[in-house]
Amino acid sequence: MIESATPRTPLSSTPRSTLTRSKERGRTDRAELDAVLDAGLICHLGVLLHGAPVVLPTVYGRDGDTLYLHGSTGSGNMRAAMTGDVSVAVSLVDGLVYARSAMHFSMNYRSAVVHGRPVELTEREERLHALRVIVEHSAPGAWDRVRQPSKKELAATVVLALDLTEASVKVRSGPPRDDEADIETGGVWAGVLPLRQVWDAPIDSDDLEPGVEVPREVVRRSESGLIVAG
Amino acid sequence: MIESATPRTPLSSTPRSTLTRSKERGRTDRAELDAVLDAGLICHLGVLLHGAPVVLPTVYGRDGDTLYLHGSTGSGNMRAAMTGDVSVAVSLVDGLVYARSAMHFSMNYRSAVVHGRPVELTEREERLHALRVIVEHSAPGAWDRVRQPSKKELAATVVLALDLTEASVKVRSGPPRDDEADIETGGVWAGVLPLRQVWDAPIDSDDLEPGVEVPREVVRRSESGLIVAG
Repeated sequence: MIESATPRTPLSSTPRSTLTRSKERGRTDRAELDAVLDAGLICHLGVLLHGAPVVLPTVYGRDGDTLYLHGSTGSGNMRAAMTGDVSVAVSLVDGLVYARSAMHFSMNYRSAVVHGRPVELTEREERLHALRVIVEHSAPGAWDRVRQPSKKELAATVVLALDLTEASVKVRSGPPRDDEADIETGGVWAGVLPLRQVWDAPIDSDDLEPGVEVPREVVRRSESGLIVAG
Repeated sequence: MIESATPRTPLSSTPRSTLTRSKERGRTDRAELDAVLDAGLICHLGVLLHGAPVVLPTVYGRDGDTLYLHGSTGSGNMRAAMTGDVSVAVSLVDGLVYARSAMHFSMNYRSAVVHGRPVELTEREERLHALRVIVEHSAPGAWDRVRQPSKKELAATVVLALDLTEASVKVRSGPPRDDEADIETGGVWAGVLPLRQVWDAPIDSDDLEPGVEVPREVVRRSESGLIVAG
């Protein structure tokens, strides 16, 4: 993650970013929002299209108090995101929680939901900065190694900036919270099956010319196993 | 996954489920939709709340042509899902695609997006069936081992059924698709860093009484490593 010098804004509590369910899982620390956003690889973007919600997975990046998104100028969803409110969710599943009763099954997770109206970036330097943040989010260290966006590519791309002030964060961890009566009855296994994402060994592209080595940051990532962005 | 005897309905192509971008990644086979939904662990549900889209992660289950969702009767998002259109996305990231140019970076993924208006289930047997499908989706083999939902738990739960006929599926796999000019220039590594989810060893709950063993299906899942639902 690229760190900015901007001081963190505290999370707001507008009606739509105020948790009404499982409030004990809510987090209000701005650093927790950043941590979830930085750990995620994709987000789910919700837009309003022809009067109905549409959700789609997409990549993103964060710099300070701003979340960046991009897409094709030909995309109806991107046009909807340019002209109305959006909701962006980043969720990481850390494990499955096996309880003693069906309704207490759960997941351990970290999730962030951001609400707001994105602003389309029009200045070339701002756009390039945002694209760099997005590429570096999913592939840290890659931007400076590769060909930069051409004029034509930039013209075909919408770049959006979303302010991170209206957001909520939820985190669940630890064992199941079973009813006392079920614990007393006993006889049913309860616990957690942890889940994590791992990188495997890099695969060269078929059309790669001989002698080009896998970049160090890709090797390191592959060897680190556990997914940690930034 | 629980298989139903109902024949598969082909995927529809309404305006919102017709892909406008990267159409070559689109899939129209109904079996591919089922495969993505069955492989996912959580979905992202999009609803319309106070005129704006809201996206939130939640669990789900599939039985034949129906996707089941549940939530608390006290949840504003669930109330919104009971009275309007929703969009449900399930996305699996299979790898990061390192290209020779910034704008060709991509992900390998499988994603499904379903649109429609959920129906609230009111019959006790239907509701129990749906809850079983949801629990068995994330924890196969668990339902029959644990305490069933009580009257009180059922009264506090909304159960929704969403028809799977309006949906789109996108799959990307394989190496980067670089521009010919970038391939000719050469010197930049291009390839894929595969990503997968693995289960770790199960952790007993602190309050588990001695002598209760980890169920066989949980041990098997943990030993299988790779996440595959069903």
